[in-house]
Amino acid sequence: MNAEARQVFFVSNGTAITAETLGHSLLAQFPSQNFRTKTIPFINTEDKALAVRDEIDQGINSLNELPIVIATMADPELKKIVGESKALILDPFSDFLPRLEKILDVESSNLGGISHRISNSSLYESRIDAIDFSLIHDDGGKTRNYDESDIILIGVSRTGKTPSCLYLALQFGLKAANYPITEEDMDSDNLPEPIRPFKDRLYGLTTDANRLVNIRQERRPNSRYSSIEQCRFELRAAEEMYHRHNIRYLNTTTMSVEEIAARILEDTGLHRLEHSV
Amino acid sequence: MNAEARQVFFVSNGTAITAETLGHSLLAQFPSQNFRTKTIPFINTEDKALAVRDEIDQGINSLNELPIVIATMADPELKKIVGESKALILDPFSDFLPRLEKILDVESSNLGGISHRISNSSLYESRIDAIDFSLIHDDGGKTRNYDESDIILIGVSRTGKTPSCLYLALQFGLKAANYPITEEDMDSDNLPEPIRPFKDRLYGLTTDANRLVNIRQERRPNSRYSSIEQCRFELRAAEEMYHRHNIRYLNTTTMSVEEIAARILEDTGLHRLEHSV
Repeated sequence: MNAEARQVFFVSNGTAITAETLGHSLLAQFPSQNFRTKTIPFINTEDKALAVRDEIDQGINSLNELPIVIATMADPELKKIVGESKALILDPFSDFLPRLEKILDVESSNLGGISHRISNSSLYESRIDAIDFSLIHDDGGKTRNYDESDIILIGVSRTGKTPSCLYLALQFGLKAANYPITEEDMDSDNLPEPIRPFKDRLYGLTTDANRLVNIRQERRPNSRYSSIEQCRFELRAAEEMYHRHNIRYLNTTTMSVEEIAARILEDTGLHRLEHSV
Repeated sequence: MNAEARQVFFVSNGTAITAETLGHSLLAQFPSQNFRTKTIPFINTEDKALAVRDEIDQGINSLNELPIVIATMADPELKKIVGESKALILDPFSDFLPRLEKILDVESSNLGGISHRISNSSLYESRIDAIDFSLIHDDGGKTRNYDESDIILIGVSRTGKTPSCLYLALQFGLKAANYPITEEDMDSDNLPEPIRPFKDRLYGLTTDANRLVNIRQERRPNSRYSSIEQCRFELRAAEEMYHRHNIRYLNTTTMSVEEIAARILEDTGLHRLEHSV
């Protein structure tokens, strides 16, 4: 029986966001294993690299198992220092940058942390604009500027509209509004008035009734709002609305915010903002 | 002269978020090159894999240059189909999963897209709670529940507080409030009353005056608000406040939202929510 967690480090010259993202994807392929992770960003001096190397080597657990390091070290000197650790080091830059240099016939810049710098300030502005837009147009708060939106998510309360909109804005620079479908809206065969002119931009979210009950119970336990009957009624009415008006929709029950956003892009063909290259 | 863009594909069994993130980091190492990127997520059937292979091979540009593919294909059969393309295929799963299997002495699950599924619904809830908290406590909107916050960002208007808070909430599950420093607050040697009891959670943002002018000009051109004198005055007063009260702070001038968030975590030692493994 091996119950002791394996120590995993995500290390980088820069923010370590790439190392973390890749690391999580790799570790998710080993669901039976127990990992303890630590992120160490901004390894941009020799002293820091030496300190990290020592910390990694101290991560050997009581079963004498070596740590695992997912690294994105662009600086060759610092990469070498960290590489002297006894741990298993997996760094996609090591193998991939030389192969890219060869096919592109140009040397890489060897600079750490540049993918999450502002490389183009008008693109940066578009992203901030998208966040502003999504905040103002959250939860039907303001509906006047829907004509500027890239997409309008609709759905009953607590189906994931707000986090999905914020993620679409932050990650992809999309102006994502959201409009809550309330009981009032369900009395009519028409679409709610504020969203009616924008049918082509509407995208519905739905979820399983039991999951909605759980989420609503956290907010208002033992209320009509969080009862299974009410959740079933609202979800059915919303889904009928989607069908009646030919609105694309997604059941988000098992999905993370990232997956909801990726599926919406896939479904609608909306373009992602190229914010890093 | 090679001015024609090189076609790059990010492909995956799942959301392709990992492939995109890694791909952007790799391409950022070649700032002189011109890339055209396309993301193709959810390659989870043989038919889709065959279609992607064909699309990749059609991506050869007019200079007869092969496309580059950054892939995270966990399914070995589908990976093989995509791998028959003529393009340069870089997939960290190919080399890293076998090495992880060896050190962990267990086989990988070979399942695509599992890192962005909900693996633990109480962690998912914490993340949604953090987003709710950060929205309610945006821009000093509500200040009563600051005792529940993990961090409170402060700074003058348009220094990046709101996007940074949303990113901290979405990506790391942190309850991040933000409070705007206004001219009123600058008249006193004391901290503004709502944030005074929470000195240890405060974190200041600042930026260069010229950059602030540019950002404010977008909102209110040729106003006092966006004048260089006003921007200089506000930034100096805010920085004095940070020094007087020993508040950690960061100059965000050249930083993306991701870098601001990563630096804040690094500086404060706040823990990231482990949402994916």
